[in-house]
Amino acid sequence: MKKADIGLIGLAVMGENLVMNMESRGYSVCVYNRTTEKVTDFIEGRAKGKNIFGADSLEELVAGLSVPRKVMLMIKAGKPVDDYIDALIPLLSPGDIIIDGGNTHYPDTTRRTKYVESKGLLLIGTGVSGGEEGALKGPSIMPGGSKGAWEHVKPIFQSIAAKVEDGIACCDWVGSDGAGHYVKMIHNGIEYGDMQLICEAYFLMKEYLSLSADEMYEVFKSWNTGELDSYLIEITGNIFARKDDDGTPLVEKILDTAGQKGTGKWTSVASLDEGVPLTLISEAVYSRYLSAMKDKRVYASKVLAGPHPTGKFTGDKAAFIEDIRQALFASKIISYAQGFALMRATSEKYCWNLNYGDIAMLWRGGCIIRSSFLSNIKDAFDANPNLDNLLIDPYFCNAIAKAQDSWRRVCAAAITHGVAISAFSSALAYYDGYRTARLPANLLQAQRDYFGAHTYERVDKPRGEMYHTNWLET
Amino acid sequence: MKKADIGLIGLAVMGENLVMNMESRGYSVCVYNRTTEKVTDFIEGRAKGKNIFGADSLEELVAGLSVPRKVMLMIKAGKPVDDYIDALIPLLSPGDIIIDGGNTHYPDTTRRTKYVESKGLLLIGTGVSGGEEGALKGPSIMPGGSKGAWEHVKPIFQSIAAKVEDGIACCDWVGSDGAGHYVKMIHNGIEYGDMQLICEAYFLMKEYLSLSADEMYEVFKSWNTGELDSYLIEITGNIFARKDDDGTPLVEKILDTAGQKGTGKWTSVASLDEGVPLTLISEAVYSRYLSAMKDKRVYASKVLAGPHPTGKFTGDKAAFIEDIRQALFASKIISYAQGFALMRATSEKYCWNLNYGDIAMLWRGGCIIRSSFLSNIKDAFDANPNLDNLLIDPYFCNAIAKAQDSWRRVCAAAITHGVAISAFSSALAYYDGYRTARLPANLLQAQRDYFGAHTYERVDKPRGEMYHTNWLET
Repeated sequence: MKKADIGLIGLAVMGENLVMNMESRGYSVCVYNRTTEKVTDFIEGRAKGKNIFGADSLEELVAGLSVPRKVMLMIKAGKPVDDYIDALIPLLSPGDIIIDGGNTHYPDTTRRTKYVESKGLLLIGTGVSGGEEGALKGPSIMPGGSKGAWEHVKPIFQSIAAKVEDGIACCDWVGSDGAGHYVKMIHNGIEYGDMQLICEAYFLMKEYLSLSADEMYEVFKSWNTGELDSYLIEITGNIFARKDDDGTPLVEKILDTAGQKGTGKWTSVASLDEGVPLTLISEAVYSRYLSAMKDKRVYASKVLAGPHPTGKFTGDKAAFIEDIRQALFASKIISYAQGFALMRATSEKYCWNLNYGDIAMLWRGGCIIRSSFLSNIKDAFDANPNLDNLLIDPYFCNAIAKAQDSWRRVCAAAITHGVAISAFSSALAYYDGYRTARLPANLLQAQRDYFGAHTYERVDKPRGEMYHTNWLET
Repeated sequence: MKKADIGLIGLAVMGENLVMNMESRGYSVCVYNRTTEKVTDFIEGRAKGKNIFGADSLEELVAGLSVPRKVMLMIKAGKPVDDYIDALIPLLSPGDIIIDGGNTHYPDTTRRTKYVESKGLLLIGTGVSGGEEGALKGPSIMPGGSKGAWEHVKPIFQSIAAKVEDGIACCDWVGSDGAGHYVKMIHNGIEYGDMQLICEAYFLMKEYLSLSADEMYEVFKSWNTGELDSYLIEITGNIFARKDDDGTPLVEKILDTAGQKGTGKWTSVASLDEGVPLTLISEAVYSRYLSAMKDKRVYASKVLAGPHPTGKFTGDKAAFIEDIRQALFASKIISYAQGFALMRATSEKYCWNLNYGDIAMLWRGGCIIRSSFLSNIKDAFDANPNLDNLLIDPYFCNAIAKAQDSWRRVCAAAITHGVAISAFSSALAYYDGYRTARLPANLLQAQRDYFGAHTYERVDKPRGEMYHTNWLET
């Protein structure tokens, strides 16, 4: 029997769709699932007549693969991945490759890469973004781990990945250790931020401008033709167009309690650990937490006072909608600037040598945050590979300069009228803080020296010279 | 030779001062330090003629203690604590007590409590707040761990702790496991928030109102007589009064790069792990990170545009100073509401049964965040021990209702004029979000269902019933 090009373990929707995608590109795939009925169902169902073969055991799976063997895990992140790795190691031969395509936390991938390599095998930990549809038609793929494995996996992964202009695949090598899963984590954090920003724009349009869903559909359709052109803006427009059975907008029937799977939280924790301000994504994570506290909010809404007056908007609606668009665009720039600054800090810490422009291109297709905006990021890093912060790039610097008056008007209006816009306003506070040569932290250092003798540096003395004052002496 | 009441390991300033404090209250103390010259120096110096004895070895230390032996570690948190515990275990007898008074991360204390108890001994992990001066004259002490140890340690700890009205000691049993160190961590997080809020008030007064240090001294002196009466407001006033050798305000000579020791970050990470919004403290942590990026900020200040116009304040300064005071007070309420909500979530998770009113009282004296405000928190939990969120308590609810117009004016003015006030504005966004019965997270759930089939709940159906829509179907 001819050996298959790749093996895949885990026939949930994502796994099945990836298999179908690989097969459609000319690769033969051998599949295994812990519950082996799933294998039979798949082989006799969607995979019938295709170049896809079932295995009843790991031994059979491994025996059916061409060398070097490539076994991809599409299973629940965590202990199951360790268990499968331990089960596969004795069955594989030196140079064989295990691929973890699940939603793994990057430190686990770093640990497993070392472990698998110590057994003479290779590990790839890869982010796969794009949901079920992306898996089937072309996801964004972010592989990292054992570099030596890449040449063997590259043809398959690049052929199944999403393609953008000129046929460029949204898949390229990211870096060693858990770099692939790290970049996927940042992607997800940015996704949290993008979604929160859109929700705040919607909140303002609905609560402050009293726009209807149909009007918001038109707004988002028009936004999707400009700087904000992106998948999330596109689907948001479509969401406003969708009616419930009674003919009213379906979105208004949905409960306002956001779910999550924790990857946004990982990004926030990573920023806290690295000492990099990532205020917007963290506010987005906290906003999901707050949304989940539905009963407490409903109770509080009856007890806690709002602003006086609460009057609705009376000015030029079209002009204010453009202000909101500018606020959203400026805030989005802040979010990506923070996310890329975090990637840089982490890349330098682990010597991953990440290529930020290439990472932006990995996200240009297939994944949830795909947008034309990412090409501007690519351009910025092409122009200056050592770019310290996206805000400094001329394109983004000018975009915010142009947007900022609108952005400030929106935030001030929301604050005055009691509309919670945590991401818009935290983004603006970061912008104003980042462009401030002298922040008030001198007072904070004085306080720390006062109560804890923590010492301070002086503006008129060399950095690193520490001073202490007995503050009550006169 | 008479046995000492307690032993202490680690003669850095905090350790020495605690020993002096204990001795001054009538307790005899046996001391040990890894570098034994420190023991000699101490015994022949500050401890001369006092009821304090030196030990050259752990064996000698243990031999010099009355039963049950109490050995307190005042050493660097982390591995050294584990090492000393392992060194002490074979020297101690069942029922003896090890006390960790360092700045330990609470999960370590939980782990060590189990470990030490498995050896037949008892462990207390205790927060000690108040810096060097507090250690000497009366710190706030937050003990947790092995409950059985408390009765033996209580007389010593309560006698050395800070006292408030009626002689009540700022020290009482907090809870099992790492509850003591947990409450100390929350204290430190709140300290980060309080300090950031004061810095933002200062920033507005200096940059927007152009007040002099002498004027700010007067403002803080007056603030310290009202609702904001607290140690940090008091020392801030004193800081503004302190002149450098050239007669100008010393605070303006200090570099604006804030240091930290990581406990604020722990609090933020804990909130992310528990799913509790803790936006203000996290913004305070991020603000310290941003302040540390001094060179990047100086560069950015020359490149990034600010608002037009940047005009200085021209209105009624006294009225705006009162607005700032109200903004600070309201934001502070938010910070404590978030911190206590986080404590409640964690207490319920670990069955610590924390007493929130008592915790507020532990902080009434000795520590950095001591303030009259904490008595209002105590009152709130006395009135309703099941109080879900401080904002719902009538006193705080009314205080914010009264403050909010000022608070909104301050935030809107700062945003319009480009003054970064991340904590003020994030606090306000939380307030407005918390009192909003219907947030825009329904759109977010629609997006998640659209791209990932994550399903959603409906407002017109029972909770827990999940729906999925094919959003492109019409």
